[in-house]
Amino acid sequence: MDAIRKVAIVGAGLVGRGWAIVFARAGCDVTIYDGSAEIRAAVLERIRASLADMLEAGLIDAVDPVMQRLRVADTLERAVGDADYVQESVLELRDVKEAVCQEISRAMRPDAVVGSCSSGIPASAFTETCANRARFLIAHPVNPPHLIPLVELVPAPWTDAETVPWLRKQMEAVGQAAIVVRKEVEGFVLNRLQGALLNEAWALLDEGVASAADIDLTVSHGLGYRWSFMGPFETIDLNAPGGIADYAKRLGPLYHAIALARRNPAPWSQKLIAQAEAERREKLAVSQLGERSAWRDRNLMALVAHKRRTGV
Amino acid sequence: MDAIRKVAIVGAGLVGRGWAIVFARAGCDVTIYDGSAEIRAAVLERIRASLADMLEAGLIDAVDPVMQRLRVADTLERAVGDADYVQESVLELRDVKEAVCQEISRAMRPDAVVGSCSSGIPASAFTETCANRARFLIAHPVNPPHLIPLVELVPAPWTDAETVPWLRKQMEAVGQAAIVVRKEVEGFVLNRLQGALLNEAWALLDEGVASAADIDLTVSHGLGYRWSFMGPFETIDLNAPGGIADYAKRLGPLYHAIALARRNPAPWSQKLIAQAEAERREKLAVSQLGERSAWRDRNLMALVAHKRRTGV
Repeated sequence: MDAIRKVAIVGAGLVGRGWAIVFARAGCDVTIYDGSAEIRAAVLERIRASLADMLEAGLIDAVDPVMQRLRVADTLERAVGDADYVQESVLELRDVKEAVCQEISRAMRPDAVVGSCSSGIPASAFTETCANRARFLIAHPVNPPHLIPLVELVPAPWTDAETVPWLRKQMEAVGQAAIVVRKEVEGFVLNRLQGALLNEAWALLDEGVASAADIDLTVSHGLGYRWSFMGPFETIDLNAPGGIADYAKRLGPLYHAIALARRNPAPWSQKLIAQAEAERREKLAVSQLGERSAWRDRNLMALVAHKRRTGV
Repeated sequence: MDAIRKVAIVGAGLVGRGWAIVFARAGCDVTIYDGSAEIRAAVLERIRASLADMLEAGLIDAVDPVMQRLRVADTLERAVGDADYVQESVLELRDVKEAVCQEISRAMRPDAVVGSCSSGIPASAFTETCANRARFLIAHPVNPPHLIPLVELVPAPWTDAETVPWLRKQMEAVGQAAIVVRKEVEGFVLNRLQGALLNEAWALLDEGVASAADIDLTVSHGLGYRWSFMGPFETIDLNAPGGIADYAKRLGPLYHAIALARRNPAPWSQKLIAQAEAERREKLAVSQLGERSAWRDRNLMALVAHKRRTGV
């Protein structure tokens, strides 16, 4: 299978636009389609605004060469027809995904590959009846994909085996960090890891052990420093003189005891959610969420520029 | 209670040396004591080497002014006698901590405060019989404390209430980020959060869902980006249009399902540890752990310099 040159983006919300930037930035020709005429009309200007931010942060050298590789198609067929790779990024509802994937399957080249953005619904839940279902798999990014490179590749049981290592290589070629999730587990890997930490955070809040702000500080000024360039296994491999096995021998029993204490997980209760909401809203009104999200994205861009300089 | 001017460091291993840098860098007079004459003889040169690295990374302006605030005492009494604050950083064994805290309690000013480094043993387990036990609490840093600012303050049931907000303020004044852990829970907050993520990581490895390297990538190139400047609650507060309550409503059930699937946690088995160890040792020999730890510390220093520039 050849390298990706032509990409179709189906669904041009926040995630689809991020994907368009990822591929166009790397030199691919990108055609964008969205079911909404309004979104189609606005998408290029929105992408241009993101690229201008990236230029200011030093993440790209120029906006125009990237923009010149982007086009909008007014039908799904025209977007998908000669694409080597289709990135599907429509709303995460099973029925919506299924209908769009049927359309893509009919319009695509039979040798193309289709990656679906889904943070939870596995490809087997919505591609079964597609004629080209062997060419479909999940390609789940972190938001926004043009700033956070991780993408989870999750094949369905009927996905062609060759598409997985191929897409991993293609993703790496356009600057993403792809991982392979070998089984369609709920939440895949990223949200399972995030969920485990979140569940513990909510439980500590519930038990009055610490405030939400202090739990946040523990990550933003503690755990997150190492995790911004090393994963959890490498972190503990470097945290005992003899490496990971030495660490596991010393601290495994403590972590097992912590897990045993959480054998009866409660759902995040309404009362608890209201408590966390109240604590957050004291710091930040709902009306300021957009402004703070822009702050987050500026910090992500600065971090990406920093990581590029240090090479980690 | 006044601001800290004179600090005693008891125990001058890696953690104690880091604490010495934290306080001397901030302008405090620091006296160091360690039970080993060999460590006492070498400690200042080791600290000088760390400061030279920090100078190179742009984290301090000069080495000598920091060094001039550091002294070594040849008895615990001389180190502790007139200190406003004592940072105890000896080996994490209950009996060792208890014996040293008894000595500190006898030598300290009755109005001084003693913070003990402990990642798991609560202060109530080793300070009960100290005459000045009301002045003792846990001050648990992340390693190394002069590069990662987070410190957990955990009072024992008999700790004077005033010492907790006082020490929090003092820690902030010397550039640390202090959190208050209101109950002596196993693993405190930091290691409970880390442990929750680690337990899920080990389980995913055990089930063959992903390789250790891919699980590491999920954090180092995904989750860790946001967590390097935002905690888990702020992250989800910005991840749904209506904030944290909106996010909890949408995704709470998924995370609860993930927790329910982990109701029978297995200990990290020998077989699993051997598998992770084999995967890590393919990437990095045990003999290279020291070199890689130096790489980690250089990256931490670069991240600290970056965060200082961006102000997050």
